[in-house]
Amino acid sequence: MNTGELTELGQQLRVDSVRAAAAAGSGHPTSSMSAADLMAVLFAHHFRYDFARPDHPANDRFVLSKGHASPLMYATYKAVGAIDDEELLTFRKSGSRLEGHPTPRQLPWIETATGSLGQGLPVGVGIALAGKRLEHAEYRVWVLCGDSELAEGSVWEAAEHAAYEHLDNLTVIVDVNRLGQRGPTRHGHDLDAYARRFQAFGWHTVEVDGHDVDAVDRAYGEADSTKGQPTAILARTLKGKGVAAVQDREGLHGKPLPEAEEAVAELGGPRDLHVRVRQPSAAGSPPARPAGHLELPRWDKGEEVATRNAFGEALAALGTARGDVVALDGEVGDSTRAEFFAKAHPERYVECYIAEQQMVATAVGVAARGWTPYASTFAAFLTRAHDFVRMASISGSGLALVGSHAGVAIGQDGPSQMGLEDLAMMRSVHGSTVLYPCDANQTARLVAAMADLDGIRYLRTSRGESPVLYGPDEDFPVGGSKVLRSSDHDRFTLVAAGVTVPEALAAADALEGEGIAVRVIDLYSVKPVDRETLRAAAEETGCLVTVEDHRPEGGLGDAVLDAFADGRPVPRLVRLAVRNMPGSASPDEQLHAAGIDAESIAAAGRLLVGEAIVS
Amino acid sequence: MNTGELTELGQQLRVDSVRAAAAAGSGHPTSSMSAADLMAVLFAHHFRYDFARPDHPANDRFVLSKGHASPLMYATYKAVGAIDDEELLTFRKSGSRLEGHPTPRQLPWIETATGSLGQGLPVGVGIALAGKRLEHAEYRVWVLCGDSELAEGSVWEAAEHAAYEHLDNLTVIVDVNRLGQRGPTRHGHDLDAYARRFQAFGWHTVEVDGHDVDAVDRAYGEADSTKGQPTAILARTLKGKGVAAVQDREGLHGKPLPEAEEAVAELGGPRDLHVRVRQPSAAGSPPARPAGHLELPRWDKGEEVATRNAFGEALAALGTARGDVVALDGEVGDSTRAEFFAKAHPERYVECYIAEQQMVATAVGVAARGWTPYASTFAAFLTRAHDFVRMASISGSGLALVGSHAGVAIGQDGPSQMGLEDLAMMRSVHGSTVLYPCDANQTARLVAAMADLDGIRYLRTSRGESPVLYGPDEDFPVGGSKVLRSSDHDRFTLVAAGVTVPEALAAADALEGEGIAVRVIDLYSVKPVDRETLRAAAEETGCLVTVEDHRPEGGLGDAVLDAFADGRPVPRLVRLAVRNMPGSASPDEQLHAAGIDAESIAAAGRLLVGEAIVS
Repeated sequence: MNTGELTELGQQLRVDSVRAAAAAGSGHPTSSMSAADLMAVLFAHHFRYDFARPDHPANDRFVLSKGHASPLMYATYKAVGAIDDEELLTFRKSGSRLEGHPTPRQLPWIETATGSLGQGLPVGVGIALAGKRLEHAEYRVWVLCGDSELAEGSVWEAAEHAAYEHLDNLTVIVDVNRLGQRGPTRHGHDLDAYARRFQAFGWHTVEVDGHDVDAVDRAYGEADSTKGQPTAILARTLKGKGVAAVQDREGLHGKPLPEAEEAVAELGGPRDLHVRVRQPSAAGSPPARPAGHLELPRWDKGEEVATRNAFGEALAALGTARGDVVALDGEVGDSTRAEFFAKAHPERYVECYIAEQQMVATAVGVAARGWTPYASTFAAFLTRAHDFVRMASISGSGLALVGSHAGVAIGQDGPSQMGLEDLAMMRSVHGSTVLYPCDANQTARLVAAMADLDGIRYLRTSRGESPVLYGPDEDFPVGGSKVLRSSDHDRFTLVAAGVTVPEALAAADALEGEGIAVRVIDLYSVKPVDRETLRAAAEETGCLVTVEDHRPEGGLGDAVLDAFADGRPVPRLVRLAVRNMPGSASPDEQLHAAGIDAESIAAAGRLLVGEAIVS
Repeated sequence: MNTGELTELGQQLRVDSVRAAAAAGSGHPTSSMSAADLMAVLFAHHFRYDFARPDHPANDRFVLSKGHASPLMYATYKAVGAIDDEELLTFRKSGSRLEGHPTPRQLPWIETATGSLGQGLPVGVGIALAGKRLEHAEYRVWVLCGDSELAEGSVWEAAEHAAYEHLDNLTVIVDVNRLGQRGPTRHGHDLDAYARRFQAFGWHTVEVDGHDVDAVDRAYGEADSTKGQPTAILARTLKGKGVAAVQDREGLHGKPLPEAEEAVAELGGPRDLHVRVRQPSAAGSPPARPAGHLELPRWDKGEEVATRNAFGEALAALGTARGDVVALDGEVGDSTRAEFFAKAHPERYVECYIAEQQMVATAVGVAARGWTPYASTFAAFLTRAHDFVRMASISGSGLALVGSHAGVAIGQDGPSQMGLEDLAMMRSVHGSTVLYPCDANQTARLVAAMADLDGIRYLRTSRGESPVLYGPDEDFPVGGSKVLRSSDHDRFTLVAAGVTVPEALAAADALEGEGIAVRVIDLYSVKPVDRETLRAAAEETGCLVTVEDHRPEGGLGDAVLDAFADGRPVPRLVRLAVRNMPGSASPDEQLHAAGIDAESIAAAGRLLVGEAIVS
């Protein structure tokens, strides 16, 4: 396309953005109009993609980090012939594929859900990393960011990671329209301010007038030919460009244009230009991901093994059996034991340093390319990436997350290092699976099972050693549980998981010595829970006592309720959990202070059998 | 102190760090040893502090961002005479004030809990902002960071915020010892790499040999005299400095020295130097924070008002009555309505741009200085700051957090903008209060009540208008609820909050028309819950049906269980919550699709009365 045609295409994208938002009665046309020329040039001249084959391994990848500019994305899809005008006007309506913020649920050309700002570039880094390091593929990754979102620290985690990995297949285009939602950004149109920052982090930068299509074209070419480092294109633009009533004006974020028909006329009226997107250069073949026989590590009953060690060993074994498994860690691989995988499979290990948001984003990007990522850090520090996990669930992303050093059981390090809220966080993620093993063989089996689940899967591991309770050939289906003690005269049921399982067993032994029979369930699958076993225990023993190394809210105690929240009769319930604020102390002292060690459990059991209220 | 004395003091701090970790059997002596000279010079020559009066308004403030180097902190406290040698050796033991990572719980000289890396500088920015903008005080803020933690994006949110606010009262000292936990950092000893980044963000930088006490002394002086911008001192150091067996060696993070006695000898043996810390320069007086009469906004029953509007108006009124109230927002003040406060009290409003971690950290810093901060953004985006909220609770920090645009009720914008996990996140925070009002007068009262609570307080607001149900003089005690419908022949109880309250009332009306009497409870206080009212409803109606615009995990449904988790008889329970993944649709369509509108509630009620299982 020549200059005139590119300019016309930009106007068409504006017109269609205005029309889509007008039809919807909501949306972000002004944020779309600033970036319209940037998109026109990209899709007409540089982006290589087969819209009929979104899974083509050599396709370039595009991420709209400023997801609220979705009208522009959909206008572009119309221009390339992927959707028609009728569908464009379904924008934001119930049942439409064209959601307020893009998600890959129904649109195969979307790589990742956006709409929480500062996440598109981090995920783009993950996709580019997959292309360069894992697949050795030729595809390029293009990310369109807003200027406001550069205030998010996650953008700078991404910038650091991308430069460190020399991702010259990655280009970020920043639509510097100087206006955020509520007013001017910190740096306005000072392109240099952004360029300095990207340069300092090791990026090549280009500053450009974002409405000069030829200059933009040259900038993309420069990005294409830059080797050894990623490129940031800083484009000076005007929000609402092309319509005088809204152009470069405050107070017009996220609103349809007041006079849409006049605006369309001012933009030169509707057009129907069709863009022929360049095809991917090579035939391209999916990367080899050989699958072999899985030989999990095995431990004998009675050995003392930390579940974090079992995780590390099992993950390394899984990596040997499956070429699609990738491990990532946040600079604590010697603690999480992800280092076992790193040593065995360095080519599929990504060191993310202390940047948990970028770690999860890299995992999302890698998963979008068909890999099976396991990302690990301390359970406590996964809270840092909560919003990324939330958005990953909207993407339907398949991630295995592993949090080590759970609970007060870590001992002396104190509360900053203790994962005490992780079960609550992970359970509330839509479609998630939450697993909390108590011994090494169980851990190994669950690590392997996680690879074949959908959505967000979370495994919680423990720092200290614990006895191996199960043989290496025992099955642990997701959604199951293990009844470890049972009789037909049980007075109540202890429901435990992880470090509280041995405590519950010891308490049951003590009570048995006093003539009080107690059922013990190992609820290693916290979500989904084993409803049948819990219901049977409720019917047969009348009372469930949950014991967890976690805050009382959102963890094991709440999880068991999932078996009884449909109107059926509910058993009596007692919840033992961490209600204090721990300081430094030994693991045993911590469990006792929190009231979740064997002695505390037995004491609660005695009260209960005496028909007393426990708390 | 002269060069020799400063050097001796550095050695003493090393010796005491080694001794403390040896006595504990755990801890981070090597990370302490690298920064010992930096601390010696700071506390001997530059830091102004009255250890007898930690609340002295003119005291400088110090934050140990690399919280794992706590032995160095405590060794310094010994050198300044704040603790004695006996207490030093209680490090990490049960009951000791000297925790594995520092917290202000028992040590009055600690400003904020650290141990989750990348949080000390952000909180330091908040303290410096309070000094400069709110208090116009002379004190300086000094933050000691590790090099590894500069990978955290939160550090760059802080860097951006500090430079933008021209915080020349803030100095960050980076202990560049080149070794992270599991190995070398990305940049090793490349001080320039860090300097470039800080400079690009608008900071003055100084590079220095961190073991040359005179050079360090000059660097601090340079920081002191730099005007208009914050200063970053990048200090080249060696981890484990001074003991050949561990100096600059990998694999020795977070471990006591293998031969502590020999190490102490190699360091020249124990010393007992005492540092006279400079006194704060001015007498200093606490900032004026006048308190006046509170005139909350009032609405008439039947008006249609969004609770986010009520929040904004009430906060502005609270700001008029109380000079200690500060508002912060993440660049969405026009949506959260924090803009009402910004317009009324610009001098106490902090625009944080799109940087939720820094927003919460600024609030923590401001709270540490005695202010009462209210920080707001979309409920969904508070997940971004989860780890900061978690750490704030360890600090015992008093924060009011406000999340707007909760739930599917926002409508067309789609799931990325919907707070659906926020109640789970906030309930699991230790000592938190969680409030979810349904009407404008209730919101206003709760906004005012939040100011006087302890710990983390969370208020959830809604985007759309809803009917005013309560008169402006009604009381809403925290921990209370309102019974909106009640009779002595209620068949079950609907427990709702926020947007589901009007839906529950409409369902109750419909069922009443069919001869089915239903109790309705407005559970505006989600944590703590009103146990008495819930228990009475359980006894009298036998069944509780919770209805919430939130995921089924961790929200209202789990909250009611708090009234029944002590072994007492439990009512039948039904939980209506958002189990689907919403797309774009109108608010009414969204509530219906999620099964939490009046029609869905009534349908569930009919099943229940017919003794059927609901789900």
